[in-house]
Amino acid sequence: MPVLVMKFGGTSVATLDRIRRAAKRVGVEVAKGYDVIVIVSAMSGKTNELVGWVNETSPLHDAREYDAVVSSGENVTAGLMALTLQEMDIPARSWQGWQVPVRTTSAHSAARIEEIPPANIMAKFAEGMKVAVVAGFQGVSPEGRITTLGRGGSDTTAVAFAAAFEAERCDIYTDVDGVYTTDPRVEAKARKLDKIAFEEMLELASLGAKVLQTRSVELAMRYKVKLRVLSSFEEQSDDAGTLVCDEEEIMESNVVAGVAFSRDEAKMTLVSVADRPGIAATIFTALSEAGVNVDMIVQNISEEGRTDMTWSCPVDQVKRAEKAMSDALADGVINFSEMLADTNVAKVSVVGIGMRSHTGVAAKMFQVLSNEGINIQVITTSEIKISVLIDRKYMELAVQALHDAFELDKAA
Amino acid sequence: MPVLVMKFGGTSVATLDRIRRAAKRVGVEVAKGYDVIVIVSAMSGKTNELVGWVNETSPLHDAREYDAVVSSGENVTAGLMALTLQEMDIPARSWQGWQVPVRTTSAHSAARIEEIPPANIMAKFAEGMKVAVVAGFQGVSPEGRITTLGRGGSDTTAVAFAAAFEAERCDIYTDVDGVYTTDPRVEAKARKLDKIAFEEMLELASLGAKVLQTRSVELAMRYKVKLRVLSSFEEQSDDAGTLVCDEEEIMESNVVAGVAFSRDEAKMTLVSVADRPGIAATIFTALSEAGVNVDMIVQNISEEGRTDMTWSCPVDQVKRAEKAMSDALADGVINFSEMLADTNVAKVSVVGIGMRSHTGVAAKMFQVLSNEGINIQVITTSEIKISVLIDRKYMELAVQALHDAFELDKAA
Repeated sequence: MPVLVMKFGGTSVATLDRIRRAAKRVGVEVAKGYDVIVIVSAMSGKTNELVGWVNETSPLHDAREYDAVVSSGENVTAGLMALTLQEMDIPARSWQGWQVPVRTTSAHSAARIEEIPPANIMAKFAEGMKVAVVAGFQGVSPEGRITTLGRGGSDTTAVAFAAAFEAERCDIYTDVDGVYTTDPRVEAKARKLDKIAFEEMLELASLGAKVLQTRSVELAMRYKVKLRVLSSFEEQSDDAGTLVCDEEEIMESNVVAGVAFSRDEAKMTLVSVADRPGIAATIFTALSEAGVNVDMIVQNISEEGRTDMTWSCPVDQVKRAEKAMSDALADGVINFSEMLADTNVAKVSVVGIGMRSHTGVAAKMFQVLSNEGINIQVITTSEIKISVLIDRKYMELAVQALHDAFELDKAA
Repeated sequence: MPVLVMKFGGTSVATLDRIRRAAKRVGVEVAKGYDVIVIVSAMSGKTNELVGWVNETSPLHDAREYDAVVSSGENVTAGLMALTLQEMDIPARSWQGWQVPVRTTSAHSAARIEEIPPANIMAKFAEGMKVAVVAGFQGVSPEGRITTLGRGGSDTTAVAFAAAFEAERCDIYTDVDGVYTTDPRVEAKARKLDKIAFEEMLELASLGAKVLQTRSVELAMRYKVKLRVLSSFEEQSDDAGTLVCDEEEIMESNVVAGVAFSRDEAKMTLVSVADRPGIAATIFTALSEAGVNVDMIVQNISEEGRTDMTWSCPVDQVKRAEKAMSDALADGVINFSEMLADTNVAKVSVVGIGMRSHTGVAAKMFQVLSNEGINIQVITTSEIKISVLIDRKYMELAVQALHDAFELDKAA
């Protein structure tokens, strides 16, 4: 039998009624002849409650105990889903991570899946079981302790199972009906994409589109897992949602696939840094060691041996970055006259694999922003992405103008 | 190091504050030099919530899935307790049933513990860990599925660990401060017992004193585990609570240790049963096959080939018993003129190992009840117990009169 993986997020299993609705979707696929692996999250709110208890008990907690506590929400949903399927006369059973086993690294709370031996579940499929319900987000370490994969980790569980079982597809059921050209709350003309390439999804995911956990997309790309994002709240046809797939499978596409944005960025500048060979390495090593995730970097032309160094990082890491730089100044390893932090910025990006073969996308983007009177503060680019940092108050305007200019409301 | 087992029930770990209070009690024992095994229940209310979800999802549920869901509450408390102890600088870690492993039968929802290999936990004690926090109530079957031990099963987990680790004592922390001569809500003069024999506790537990799960007392008796029941809500001294122990350890005791009672009994009578050899076997086999737990039985003297057959059973099994008897009548295997069910009765019992060597306890009990004008409807006895069924409205009066007559308010 072909295997299908179906993953239901927290809002899709928030109540017993919603679990029943999800189970009906599973029943439709079983009727088509699939052996189905269902990956479930905890009922929405449950994981937050457990995390809250752990943090209240022990602010600097032992991550092994955190994992033992926080993984329990998925166990509840897995059992309830199996029972619901049984009530529909569909042979089903639940599996906790250690039972499969989902073997992970020992990096508690941020573990990586290393191996999922398919033998146990395949043996049950051979005996006539139609659905294996697996608790997402969790695994077991080489030491036999329970691990978790980080928030959103159930997406990664789903893709890893799809890879291990060579599933025909991995369907991610969530509370939105697919991947959009941009956030419909910012641009009403945003259009749902029927297909998007792995590389594009990866850029959009890491740029703040919260549909899929970034690591799940990386994994899907590496193992060529066909990934579909669709809504658990709507009647579904076979081509519902958005298919995340290899770019070869996308016949026609716009040069730009989508516009992403993030409000969580801050811009920091060291003014009048004493410039010498290796100064950039010194600064960014210090920031890295302080746990600051630097995204964009700009260095002005050096004049009279001094330069300005600018970078962006998440807003909640500004304090940490400031301390790292003050310490480096006090230690005499760097020298600057002033440190500025501007949290009143936003990052706007256009993403599309078409950029590889089309020139002029950057020029067009800058022209569009210029026409709207929006000043670009920092720029970074990759092969399939151009990002700019701008004043936060212009963010919506920039997103709408770019969406219009690249005609994202129209299919290719 | 000597090992001590401490068990905290649901009300003792109902909130993070109460978990902290329980952890402080653990800290006191660690300071005395014990390696401590802590058994925890789920936070009170949690198991009921999970059971409710399972029953709503699937009234005739797969017990394996029930166990997978319902066991999750204990995992949460175990992790939180370990974190709380770590915050107090006490080296601790949590263990789920399958991690120890607590090996049980495959009788899901009512599994029996078969083996607890001490090696894993002892190795950690040898490395300097001071407290192993174990999720109570759960284990793992030979097939690798999660099992549970039935409601109140954490008491049994605690005693089984005390036996497996040859613990010095097994302390059961609960919301009462020990075992009383009777329920203080019925008889204000009820006195807390310092010691009680296993056999007495077993009779009291099965007679409705809800302090300990019956099976945990059986297990403690078999493996000579010193069991102490005490309150988690009071400051404790070394001789707090009630010690349940071998009768040899009790130097002085009253002939009667306590008065137990139960309101959950019903009296049923088949009037004018056609009497013939084997009729009792026919009736009680039919009741047993219908799942009716018959407690007391009385058969009147047979007159002219007909007799009345009376028995008691739990109130909630009366409907089932009536159906079994009607079916047997319809099938012609028994013959009676009328079936009566009286749910307006109560069972009152006096229990004490002293009865073995003292005669006249039954006579005294019947005289006391007679003096109060209370009619005895059914009587059963065992070596250390006498039970009577009486009109429910006299229950409190009977308990008080017996408590007085046997001078239970005075220590031996």
